[in-house]
Amino acid sequence: MTTIARIAKEAGVSVPTVSKVLNGRPDVSVPTRQRVEELLAKHQYRKRNGRASSSQLIDLVFHELASAWAIEIIHGVERAARENNMSVVLSELAGAHRPRQAWIDQVVARQPAGVILVLSDLDATQRHQLETRSIPYVVVDTAGELPAGVPAVGSANWNGGLMATRHLLELGHRRIGAITGPEDVMCSRQRLDGYRAALDEKGLSFEPSLMLAGEFTTESGYERGMELLSLPDRPTAIVAGNDLEAMGLLRAARDKGLRVPEDLSIVGYDDLQVASWTTPRLTTVRQPLLDMAHTATTMVLQLAAGRTLAMPRIDLATELIVRESTAPPPA
Amino acid sequence: MTTIARIAKEAGVSVPTVSKVLNGRPDVSVPTRQRVEELLAKHQYRKRNGRASSSQLIDLVFHELASAWAIEIIHGVERAARENNMSVVLSELAGAHRPRQAWIDQVVARQPAGVILVLSDLDATQRHQLETRSIPYVVVDTAGELPAGVPAVGSANWNGGLMATRHLLELGHRRIGAITGPEDVMCSRQRLDGYRAALDEKGLSFEPSLMLAGEFTTESGYERGMELLSLPDRPTAIVAGNDLEAMGLLRAARDKGLRVPEDLSIVGYDDLQVASWTTPRLTTVRQPLLDMAHTATTMVLQLAAGRTLAMPRIDLATELIVRESTAPPPA
Repeated sequence: MTTIARIAKEAGVSVPTVSKVLNGRPDVSVPTRQRVEELLAKHQYRKRNGRASSSQLIDLVFHELASAWAIEIIHGVERAARENNMSVVLSELAGAHRPRQAWIDQVVARQPAGVILVLSDLDATQRHQLETRSIPYVVVDTAGELPAGVPAVGSANWNGGLMATRHLLELGHRRIGAITGPEDVMCSRQRLDGYRAALDEKGLSFEPSLMLAGEFTTESGYERGMELLSLPDRPTAIVAGNDLEAMGLLRAARDKGLRVPEDLSIVGYDDLQVASWTTPRLTTVRQPLLDMAHTATTMVLQLAAGRTLAMPRIDLATELIVRESTAPPPA
Repeated sequence: MTTIARIAKEAGVSVPTVSKVLNGRPDVSVPTRQRVEELLAKHQYRKRNGRASSSQLIDLVFHELASAWAIEIIHGVERAARENNMSVVLSELAGAHRPRQAWIDQVVARQPAGVILVLSDLDATQRHQLETRSIPYVVVDTAGELPAGVPAVGSANWNGGLMATRHLLELGHRRIGAITGPEDVMCSRQRLDGYRAALDEKGLSFEPSLMLAGEFTTESGYERGMELLSLPDRPTAIVAGNDLEAMGLLRAARDKGLRVPEDLSIVGYDDLQVASWTTPRLTTVRQPLLDMAHTATTMVLQLAAGRTLAMPRIDLATELIVRESTAPPPA
């Protein structure tokens, strides 16, 4: 008996009903659909066992599309897709880190060759829904912990935080503040740990009062910057969670009457285009967003072709770009 | 005899061959495909006459994805699509203003509900290919002249150029330079004509030496800015083609030792997020990119539903946002 027939029998439905669920057709009742989904997951059903996908589509999902950061990822995915004669379906989760059920239903119905998730993740049920349809997925820049076996492309965040902080320490700074990304975002926690490691190396203790969480936005960089720069014993240097926060921080310094880099050093993160055009130009940690996106796309296409990945988890290197926003602390 | 049968007979091929061409299947020779395409266009064949499209996909095509400008358009289209339970397929033309044949072949094969073209346009053959498949399309921010009947969403570019220049004239400037977008891009020509109209109103003559064409990039804003600011009788104010050019111009002013706005006034265009975070904050013309994208998507979905558009050409209003980069000319 085929697996589908067995599942149909166990669920007490017909074989065509199981097919409808598998193909994301809407004309199946919710309880039936749920029962079939559970059995598909339980029996580890795989739709096209070992066969390559014939779809020409790759799904790309962002938790949020708001910033210039996203455009570099889109660009990398679109380029890799085009090289392979594929097209990219783009979705946004409106700030959520987990897709809505409506989105996963659409994906199951359109059966793309694969899915690329940016700063977002699936829950176990959603994961099963893709796995049972043999739709591979790759995560870019993980928001949280990933279960073993989920392919992912990131960058050396810990190392980036370390390099940024070491650079400031080498310039002579000892009171170094940090504005991070959201506390529950993995890449941000890794950068912060790199910052702490650099302080440790110098035998400096970590001061919680100098560390504030931002939201990766210019506004939050400005607000947290105003807080840090209002401290009675303010830092002489600040590492920002990303370039947008650093831009807000530049404004906060200006509003406080502080010159950058003479009175305050600032290091950004990402090296977006804008980092070379701020006044002063931003010293920042370059993250190879385009390459990360390109790598993730290549990985998902390999999986779609039925191949296994030699390296399912890849972190690309980060690099410190020294420009004009860092200098020795005021004497 | 059905139209397809008549076309098959006239082309000397079978009815299934005509169907294959219509559905973008690759297994038809190029000359046959071309002959069938020509006859489909000649007979003004329409694939699903009056019936609504059942596709869940909208194609969104950019001439280029490089800038933060694109992200606002993507955001608007994605949001409108999501509200209608549709998904967005994103493509880039790598800087070309006309799609490659490979792209149009993919579109014909996937038969989306509609196509949105950003700063790009189709040639007559490509247009026929969409029309014969009853795939509607809407152009956002036209790059060139559009044939009558092609629906389009733009913004009041002429008015934007007029407002920006009037603002500088009211502040007392008389030598006003302009860095435009590429000369062959319609929206840029419209803005320049608004600039000329404002000069006319004041009885000022247009000085070609004060007008340079950029490429809508920060780099080109910097380079053209350095040229204008090196003139023996340099302008006291410059209108930029967009905010990115204005950012480059800010840097050029700094490199020339000029203070903005005390020595030089600058007006941007678009009001991207970055315009509120430059030093000084940019005075700019706000273009409602998100609304333009949303409107275009709504239009294409109406057409896909078999309805006709009450207003096939819409220009949304632009607005002058006065911030810190403009002031009276130096005494």
